[in-house]
Amino acid sequence: MPIEIPEVVIERLPVYARALADLEAQGREVVSSQELGEKLGVTPAQIRKDLSYFGRFGKQGRGYNVRRLSEHLRHILGLDRTWDMVLIGVGPLGQAILHYGGFAPQGFRVVEAFDASPAVIGRTIGGIVVRDVRDLKQRLAERKVDIGIVAVPAAVAQEVIDTLVECGIKAILNYAPIAAQVPPGVHIRRVDPVLELQSMTYYLKSQDGAAK
Amino acid sequence: MPIEIPEVVIERLPVYARALADLEAQGREVVSSQELGEKLGVTPAQIRKDLSYFGRFGKQGRGYNVRRLSEHLRHILGLDRTWDMVLIGVGPLGQAILHYGGFAPQGFRVVEAFDASPAVIGRTIGGIVVRDVRDLKQRLAERKVDIGIVAVPAAVAQEVIDTLVECGIKAILNYAPIAAQVPPGVHIRRVDPVLELQSMTYYLKSQDGAAK
Repeated sequence: MPIEIPEVVIERLPVYARALADLEAQGREVVSSQELGEKLGVTPAQIRKDLSYFGRFGKQGRGYNVRRLSEHLRHILGLDRTWDMVLIGVGPLGQAILHYGGFAPQGFRVVEAFDASPAVIGRTIGGIVVRDVRDLKQRLAERKVDIGIVAVPAAVAQEVIDTLVECGIKAILNYAPIAAQVPPGVHIRRVDPVLELQSMTYYLKSQDGAAK
Repeated sequence: MPIEIPEVVIERLPVYARALADLEAQGREVVSSQELGEKLGVTPAQIRKDLSYFGRFGKQGRGYNVRRLSEHLRHILGLDRTWDMVLIGVGPLGQAILHYGGFAPQGFRVVEAFDASPAVIGRTIGGIVVRDVRDLKQRLAERKVDIGIVAVPAAVAQEVIDTLVECGIKAILNYAPIAAQVPPGVHIRRVDPVLELQSMTYYLKSQDGAAK
């Protein structure tokens, strides 16, 4: 039985992995926790603590081997394989997700899509045939997928998430603007543009002030 | 002249502000940096250091006053007012953004939308009349907006971002899957569902392993 690693540590690892991939692309061989910390804005102690859960990667005072740490993190995170996703909700947002070019290069692919509206059921969008959401349970019993993407209106998002959980889905990406509930053992992340906006208004506000 | 606060510190403040708003809604009056740290998965030292840029909020050993810190952070971040946004790209993703219910309750509103396609120019979507992107510069010269949202295909995203910068926009939310470049003084954030997915596959991978 492996030791339990805090979820917040796991959440930071993809950011480390991306930074390391950038360094690797630049031809860098070694990086210190200090430099990685400055790049990412976390304390070197936090980085060392986060990575210590997975073994000993660096030698005191000599930094991390970029390629080895990068490969190891990608393996730990399961980024060295392909993941199949089911999309629920093929309205404007869902259609945008089916056309999104950012998933495939990173090993994520939508393989099933469902909606409740006769206007889209049966249509092929982004190469995927949209199915009736009433057939969701039966279809997922036949075909195993790894991740659910929820792109339905806020009012029905929790209900859809409950259904995905019943189908055995253990990882959900939620685009609906609600803080959804899932049982223990199921992981959920929210795509939250508002947090991104809120981290920029500080600067706009300062400029407004300066202009007065 | 105020001291320069690292951008990474500013990026963490909305997360603190949201956690404090949650605590406030639960009727909590005081919170320690330890508890806030555990809730958010950052070290208490990091929280104390981040907040120390903005003054002295807590008394040693007595924690932070939740309401006061919450209000102060909202004021610092400029979350106590409304921000006007211009949307570029009214394809499937842009239309979803115009219908997104998560912006308005947080004080963000799209007031202008532009596209290059005759199929959407002139249409009213989510209460906004879509204009010809060729009129973007002239329109933004007449009407000041605070934030630009980019929802165009990856291939033209950098060009659109450059145009927004020329128009004087200082904050950009980029939905296109590219790491765009902006000059100093312009802030950009990317809505990046891949990072969210990558923080969940660790668990799926572990389960796969356990099932073997």
